[in-house]
Amino acid sequence: MAQIKGNAVIIQSGGPTAVINQTLAGIMDESRNYHQIENIYGASHGLHGLLYENFLNLSNERQNIWSEIAVSPGAALGSARLKPKTSDLNRIFDILSAHKIKFIFYIGGNDSAEAAELIREEANRRAYDVRILHLPKTIDNDLMVTDHCPGYGSVAKVVSHIIAGDDLDNRSFYNSVKINVVMGRHAGWIAGATAIAKKGHIDVEDHDEVGPHLIYFPEIKFEDEKFINDVQKTYDRIGRATIVVAEGIADQIDPNKFTNEVDEFGNKQLSGSGKLGDYLTNLIKKHLIFNQQYGKLRCRADTLGYLQRSLAGMASKTDQKEAFLIGSMSVKYMMEGETDKMVTLVRTSQKPYNCTTGLCDLKLVAQKTKLLSRSMINAEGNGVTEEFFDYVLPLAGGVPEIRALKAQHVPKHLPEYART
Amino acid sequence: MAQIKGNAVIIQSGGPTAVINQTLAGIMDESRNYHQIENIYGASHGLHGLLYENFLNLSNERQNIWSEIAVSPGAALGSARLKPKTSDLNRIFDILSAHKIKFIFYIGGNDSAEAAELIREEANRRAYDVRILHLPKTIDNDLMVTDHCPGYGSVAKVVSHIIAGDDLDNRSFYNSVKINVVMGRHAGWIAGATAIAKKGHIDVEDHDEVGPHLIYFPEIKFEDEKFINDVQKTYDRIGRATIVVAEGIADQIDPNKFTNEVDEFGNKQLSGSGKLGDYLTNLIKKHLIFNQQYGKLRCRADTLGYLQRSLAGMASKTDQKEAFLIGSMSVKYMMEGETDKMVTLVRTSQKPYNCTTGLCDLKLVAQKTKLLSRSMINAEGNGVTEEFFDYVLPLAGGVPEIRALKAQHVPKHLPEYART
Repeated sequence: MAQIKGNAVIIQSGGPTAVINQTLAGIMDESRNYHQIENIYGASHGLHGLLYENFLNLSNERQNIWSEIAVSPGAALGSARLKPKTSDLNRIFDILSAHKIKFIFYIGGNDSAEAAELIREEANRRAYDVRILHLPKTIDNDLMVTDHCPGYGSVAKVVSHIIAGDDLDNRSFYNSVKINVVMGRHAGWIAGATAIAKKGHIDVEDHDEVGPHLIYFPEIKFEDEKFINDVQKTYDRIGRATIVVAEGIADQIDPNKFTNEVDEFGNKQLSGSGKLGDYLTNLIKKHLIFNQQYGKLRCRADTLGYLQRSLAGMASKTDQKEAFLIGSMSVKYMMEGETDKMVTLVRTSQKPYNCTTGLCDLKLVAQKTKLLSRSMINAEGNGVTEEFFDYVLPLAGGVPEIRALKAQHVPKHLPEYART
Repeated sequence: MAQIKGNAVIIQSGGPTAVINQTLAGIMDESRNYHQIENIYGASHGLHGLLYENFLNLSNERQNIWSEIAVSPGAALGSARLKPKTSDLNRIFDILSAHKIKFIFYIGGNDSAEAAELIREEANRRAYDVRILHLPKTIDNDLMVTDHCPGYGSVAKVVSHIIAGDDLDNRSFYNSVKINVVMGRHAGWIAGATAIAKKGHIDVEDHDEVGPHLIYFPEIKFEDEKFINDVQKTYDRIGRATIVVAEGIADQIDPNKFTNEVDEFGNKQLSGSGKLGDYLTNLIKKHLIFNQQYGKLRCRADTLGYLQRSLAGMASKTDQKEAFLIGSMSVKYMMEGETDKMVTLVRTSQKPYNCTTGLCDLKLVAQKTKLLSRSMINAEGNGVTEEFFDYVLPLAGGVPEIRALKAQHVPKHLPEYART
């Protein structure tokens, strides 16, 4: 392989995660060891920086900033949701050439993999000597080949802590149905991860009493009637219900009803609106048969929104470590001559959990989506199986610890009360 | 004072907080020292338990459960939003009498203070010997007399971490306006607390660049035009905006537009719906003038919902300690003969922060709401002053640590790009 030398650019793309800056820190840390890498530039706001020649000189930052940036949510370089048009490619190569850029680290999801591939194909046509690696990052966890994606473990931790607390809050009330809409456009990885909340309970005699009681996945056909029946069954059993739905089920109800905007990759905006939650709440209010003695029906929906990926101070330690590893290993791979590939996470052992890195062809990843396998979802299509728990628990790096009272009832002395 | 002896009942009422169980634990811990208290019962689901004779025998729980329950969100005894009707009072006294209840610990907000007062007045009429203390609890922090309310410090911590992360997430994008609707029906204590996110930034040269950039309070008249102008000014200055609004401002826009349900105290349901966020988002989308070179306008709203009060694992240590103190001190006060009062928190020193407890007449609290003083809100009515920071910082027990890059731009070599 030809020895090349020049500047490097790091691109952060798509929705940020709690650990996208760990990957950035990993690249910065490892690249110090290679004299072939001269300056390291950060593309300001992803592809936008590459088109408008907005670069930050990361080599000039103080060295110890990277461990501090690593624990900050958001994309420290700025991100974008742009797709390179054919007319953009000339400009991109003018810029790569003007800045002597020979190494591109593209941190992103499956849209970014597609963008990286387009740039790579153009480089081949031009015989421009540049190495490009794609570094996976997506809270959606829906990239092919890699066991899981950096960013997912932290969301799994955040949503499971939210749902654990929410279920205790919900348990405080009679006749209470609580719906939580979580992120997940095409795949139910985040929705499934909320089930971790069930594993944090100790001292609880009836584990089926612990929420989330029902989880709905984009992978499973969503039907209003089935949903109402499921909630009724849960209510009849325990007098309440904590429910999680992936935002992507909106597409199954009515693709046009819940959508406002579309980005350059054709992704619909689903978050940042309470419409799906309102729709489901109305279904329950209209159809659930409940015991009036315990008061009115209390039915609420929360759409958890962007804090799922950005909550400060709650990242999974496993996720942080692996996101950093992806960054540092990508430098090693590139210096060994690797290009046009995505760095993957490879689970080498389940118990104890162990994970290393690998590489795969970009074509296997771009524009593709990894769904939950059917065996990770229960037979009824409204919960997860032990196979899924085995998969997800090590990634979230712990369960929320939850306690409940034994509830030893005091014998009654008086006749029933009929409140008027 | 006459020595009385008998059973005690603990009532948890209204919306749970992250530390309502600390107060429960404080009562359980201290009451072991007094032989006058025989059994301690928990009213199952607040006033509902008192009406339907559903009591849990807390004295039978294992002793070490209380420190574990203390850190769990939700109301461990169950809660309710019922107001005692005149027709309920006979029943309540039948039950108190049948169960030899002489001590009532009523943990709640201003609605609960009203309920406690109604029960107390009936006890006076009947000359029934019972002691009642009200123990404050509300994330809204809107009770009179007490310096602050247990539950508030933890919400302040949670929302400031959410907004710190959200602002970094928002900063990742160009032309991005992000609106966050937080709890706070009548008072802007929670909205104001999000400003703590501004204090966690180190290394940031322009502190005005750090969000939240605009905060809207129920105490200040909300006008669409003023809102749009404020956002435009922020956008013109830094190209984006992170905004916080208290849910209560919905009342100022149109009291009927955003309300679905009302509880027995006449409180409107404001959370659990994205309507206010959608309304404000539409205002911005319609009126904001933005720079098209940086792409489309990205405007999103999240309604943070119930996780503000229930997120597991993120309570403020100061809040936890004080909520426990309220519980243990209430037992001491009651054993000294105190009744018909609320236990208050008294700030005895600002730097270093120090807080002790006191007592006040229930009548000073019931049905009253403490608003932010005008001097805690900035002149423009869209942010907080240093006076508010002095008030809130010790309660949240810390600031989210946030870092940003220095952003040293690489000189450009090429002409401007006009993307087509």
